[in-house]
Amino acid sequence: VSGAPVVVLAGGTGGAKLARGMLDVAGDDLVVVANTADDVEVHGAHVSPDPDLVTYWLADRIDERGWGLRDDTFAVMDGLRELGEDVWFNLGDRDLAVCLQRAERLAAGRRLTDSLRELGRAFGVRGHVLPMTDDPVRTRVKAEGTWWPFQEFMIRRRGQGPVEDVAFDGIEHAAVPPEVLEAVAGARALVIGPSNPVISIGPILAVPGMREALAAAAAPVVAVSPIVDGAVLKGPTEAFLAWAGQTMDAPGIAATYGSLLDGVVTDEDVELPVPALRTDTLMADAEGRARVARETLDFALALAR
Amino acid sequence: VSGAPVVVLAGGTGGAKLARGMLDVAGDDLVVVANTADDVEVHGAHVSPDPDLVTYWLADRIDERGWGLRDDTFAVMDGLRELGEDVWFNLGDRDLAVCLQRAERLAAGRRLTDSLRELGRAFGVRGHVLPMTDDPVRTRVKAEGTWWPFQEFMIRRRGQGPVEDVAFDGIEHAAVPPEVLEAVAGARALVIGPSNPVISIGPILAVPGMREALAAAAAPVVAVSPIVDGAVLKGPTEAFLAWAGQTMDAPGIAATYGSLLDGVVTDEDVELPVPALRTDTLMADAEGRARVARETLDFALALAR
Repeated sequence: VSGAPVVVLAGGTGGAKLARGMLDVAGDDLVVVANTADDVEVHGAHVSPDPDLVTYWLADRIDERGWGLRDDTFAVMDGLRELGEDVWFNLGDRDLAVCLQRAERLAAGRRLTDSLRELGRAFGVRGHVLPMTDDPVRTRVKAEGTWWPFQEFMIRRRGQGPVEDVAFDGIEHAAVPPEVLEAVAGARALVIGPSNPVISIGPILAVPGMREALAAAAAPVVAVSPIVDGAVLKGPTEAFLAWAGQTMDAPGIAATYGSLLDGVVTDEDVELPVPALRTDTLMADAEGRARVARETLDFALALAR
Repeated sequence: VSGAPVVVLAGGTGGAKLARGMLDVAGDDLVVVANTADDVEVHGAHVSPDPDLVTYWLADRIDERGWGLRDDTFAVMDGLRELGEDVWFNLGDRDLAVCLQRAERLAAGRRLTDSLRELGRAFGVRGHVLPMTDDPVRTRVKAEGTWWPFQEFMIRRRGQGPVEDVAFDGIEHAAVPPEVLEAVAGARALVIGPSNPVISIGPILAVPGMREALAAAAAPVVAVSPIVDGAVLKGPTEAFLAWAGQTMDAPGIAATYGSLLDGVVTDEDVELPVPALRTDTLMADAEGRARVARETLDFALALAR
């Protein structure tokens, strides 16, 4: 980080796309704080879906399918299937290499923060991907009376609501890494990416000390709404907003963040409790991602004046 | 096992080739007891080189390079290298799937015996591959004053002697699995495969109770010499025989097994302390493997009369 950081809180694809756009705008100053409550251990690997999604986007190596590495192969998963394994979580071979190395690092007592930094360097990534915490936090979702580990809810149950409850196991014992506290305190802008506010951004904000750090920071906090043209491009946002008692619109998004928010970026022409930037929030290509990122950063910096 | 078992003790390639030949001769009655002291944990996987070598040979899926699965790819190892890992132990992707599944099974408290049975079934293998023990035993080799874990001695040091000492860590706490005891006790022939007598067969015989079980069995014990045409086709046998104070010939091989032995199969025309079958022991192709296996079995059965 050469100048004051631009911090982006990111969950899945929406946050990762905004982060990629922000890399064009902020370069080395970009610091992404990624949700780790979706992490899962499978086949000896430690999978960190959200941080890796961001890293693969920043490295321009994200596959067209929307996850994993471009041109990856799936020989190990095919092999496990031949062996009769129930391969419910699919992982490419090079993606698996990333997650096997990470599992070894963590087993040796290293921090997830260090493992993500090492991955970023190996992939030649500018900008910095930090985990919301180095401590284990796992999202569970209750649907039809059954508690599901998050990835199983998304994959085995295909994200099917209605959502009856949400829990972030381990959150009360989690701490914000010092690198995140430092970036937030020194940031020129704090951007909540267009990710699911309940299960992607929710865990980040629920790490003890995170809300306080964001509220205490000098920089404004602006959220980019994940709702584009009235819908969410990916993932079961509506079911989770409904559980949270919020509407599937920019006011609903703003309400989930409450007093933390200094501004909202949205394509909706609606009343909001905070200043809003109304713009096209579709990030269909590199140009769109950079445009939304630049407009968001300019909006945040204007609020800071 | 439908009839009385034909038990083959096997280490690396020589033992595996004889086992493959014996499959043609004994079919379902084949029971291979494999060395597990070369096992190694890498990248979250539990690699059992000798049992897997035998299984891949029995399944007719051994690769021409002499280890691993035919037509396997190496994407995960390539990925680990890109991440800066020191990939000293190479493992194909499907081979890795086998070893990741095994690591998960063992971590869940399952026995190696059960994991090898499951692998044999998944690969449609006739015959049975059993580990010498379900307990962890690890060979270490001392050379130039340094103790090496066995695989590192073989790969990093390229098996370079002179060998100053050999240890089988954990052997005193290891037990022979009941399946092995049962097969040995009921066998019609007990064959020591043409593997390194010190570091491949040595650990098998060193499991407490194994020598006693072989000695108490009704069936004769015959060893096939790994020395073919005065040389060993694969591996550093001479350095280990030298450490054991034995010569690199059939008498040296016989001496390492001592009173356990009822007969030797060798291509050498030499004096031996036990009855010998003199024959061409080269197993260059399927026909050769089946011929050596059949001659060895006939020789053993004749000794039993």
